[in-house]
Amino acid sequence: MAHITLGNDQPGISGLFHYRPQTARPMSELAEVLLRGDNSLSRGERELIAAYVSAGNECRFCFSSHAAFAEAQLPEGTTPVGEICADPAAAAISDKMKALLDIAGAVRQGGKTVTDRQVAEARAVGASDVEIHDTILIAAAFCMFNRYVDGLAAFTPDDPAAYKVMADRIVESGYLRAFPEPQG
Amino acid sequence: MAHITLGNDQPGISGLFHYRPQTARPMSELAEVLLRGDNSLSRGERELIAAYVSAGNECRFCFSSHAAFAEAQLPEGTTPVGEICADPAAAAISDKMKALLDIAGAVRQGGKTVTDRQVAEARAVGASDVEIHDTILIAAAFCMFNRYVDGLAAFTPDDPAAYKVMADRIVESGYLRAFPEPQG
Repeated sequence: MAHITLGNDQPGISGLFHYRPQTARPMSELAEVLLRGDNSLSRGERELIAAYVSAGNECRFCFSSHAAFAEAQLPEGTTPVGEICADPAAAAISDKMKALLDIAGAVRQGGKTVTDRQVAEARAVGASDVEIHDTILIAAAFCMFNRYVDGLAAFTPDDPAAYKVMADRIVESGYLRAFPEPQG
Repeated sequence: MAHITLGNDQPGISGLFHYRPQTARPMSELAEVLLRGDNSLSRGERELIAAYVSAGNECRFCFSSHAAFAEAQLPEGTTPVGEICADPAAAAISDKMKALLDIAGAVRQGGKTVTDRQVAEARAVGASDVEIHDTILIAAAFCMFNRYVDGLAAFTPDDPAAYKVMADRIVESGYLRAFPEPQG
């Protein structure tokens, strides 16, 4: 049960967003820009970064959600996201994604743990400055989203079908349509 | 030097915001709502929570900034923010602020570390559900801002006067005026 009375039975961050639409709006806008806005990283790749950070932070709601959103948008035949997150270095993903996930994992532990070497290695396998920037900000943002959901002990569905429904909605309509407008 | 070429010499998060105004806008809006919007917690109290989390994450830019913003808005005679952050339990602040900083410190370590007991103790000394919610979200948001600034190794001024200038601007105009509008 959530630490506060939310007054709704929406799962995970949706319940928090309905409780406090004033903060939901900029948070949804940030997710929309980072995960779905114009970008040389695909939407699936960006959702994979979000899922990887959420896995490391052991946020089951965010991991289950963003793994489902990633799998819905990565090419058919991609290794399951859970397997990639368990061992990105061994996964059948591009060297660029391996380097970016390595940076995201460092950000998760703390901003200062990102090294010049990691950034140079990402560049050497083709990552642009904007891609490096966005990877770091996606990882940082999920350190927020994960703590928000688990810090308030938001409701986390057990049924995988619940995340499939959310994935359909996000792929179709994005983060701004999925959450309420602020009431005031 | 920052990990990527920002193309400007603005300090800390301002440099990152000028580099990527598309993400700067929702991040600035979130800061404005959380730290300056209508709230039963004063602006100074909310900046203190931000400074406390930034101190724990050892983000010198964010700590120096939000400590200056807190000191500019807390009542005259309040213990210096650095002293409060070093030992909130011993500081001359309200029991409610002590309980909220205790929750913020737990969020910083990870969302799951917030306990029912901490929440009950905050309620017992007068914290409302919205205050508990906003404390958790401020703490979570600074886990993002801190990682964003340090993950990109943004420029961190040494001169305390630089933070005083920023404090004057934030107190006067807020987070939305301080940063650029997105270009596209």
